Amino acid sequence: MTEETIIRKATHDDLESILTLVKELAAYELAPEEVWVNLSDYQEAFKESVFESLIIEIGGQITGVCIYYLTWSTWKGRMLYLEDFIIKQDFRKHGLGQQLFDAFIMRAKELNCALVKWQVLDWNIPALKFYEKNHALIEKEWWNGKLILKTRPNE
Amino acid sequence: MTEETIIRKATHDDLESILTLVKELAAYELAPEEVWVNLSDYQEAFKESVFESLIIEIGGQITGVCIYYLTWSTWKGRMLYLEDFIIKQDFRKHGLGQQLFDAFIMRAKELNCALVKWQVLDWNIPALKFYEKNHALIEKEWWNGKLILKTRPNE
Repeated sequence: MTEETIIRKATHDDLESILTLVKELAAYELAPEEVWVNLSDYQEAFKESVFESLIIEIGGQITGVCIYYLTWSTWKGRMLYLEDFIIKQDFRKHGLGQQLFDAFIMRAKELNCALVKWQVLDWNIPALKFYEKNHALIEKEWWNGKLILKTRPNE
Repeated sequence: MTEETIIRKATHDDLESILTLVKELAAYELAPEEVWVNLSDYQEAFKESVFESLIIEIGGQITGVCIYYLTWSTWKGRMLYLEDFIIKQDFRKHGLGQQLFDAFIMRAKELNCALVKWQVLDWNIPALKFYEKNHALIEKEWWNGKLILKTRPNE
């Protein structure tokens, strides 16, 4: 890849591309119909700083994104939670994921976070290998609980 | 329990009691040394709205607490994440947990959240029964990844 690679914080104008990537990941995770949220939901939440995002661009094209938000660990304090971390299929295996992950960790340090946290599917071996290479602690004994409060998708 | 039961949002003045409850639970789980965070960390983060808390009081005594924060589900939108949910040992089995959980759900609806999320240990049968009774979806296929960024506890 000889074209210029840039990592930067996402702006309002990137949200449409980000949502497109989110939908691609949902398809990879075999659940495309689970994306209920729409672009205006993203725009409103972004404006209210509910989340932040870093994007990676090659030659002006967005090839990866991470979406995260500040949370609170009751034992450790400030915690940056990595909700989504996507590199486009065609751009994998070139170290872009590592660059984006490093930028995310740098952002967590800027925000004075004591730790970062995320989730990974138990069958996602390439992702698990990536996180192990980054010396992550992988916890297998926690289950997620969820209650859906809105029963109908947005238009 | 004939004394008055009150559920209310926590204020700055409750943070010391909240941290005491968090530490009691950590000690009960034989991990008191894992609580790195101190009262001034709680105060600063609370002031910056990094988290919110609801407490349950009986006769003026705090007997339970839940700690949560607003996050972003990339698929569903606004999500209230329940980080900690504690009822003091001596006050369990009186329905206080249900009252506090209901108040948490009400808060999530006020904040226009599409869902609530939390975690539960796979061996915690009483908690799992409680969440099943509340018609929660329990997901077993996600593992947690974590990276600790601060290696030394606060004083």
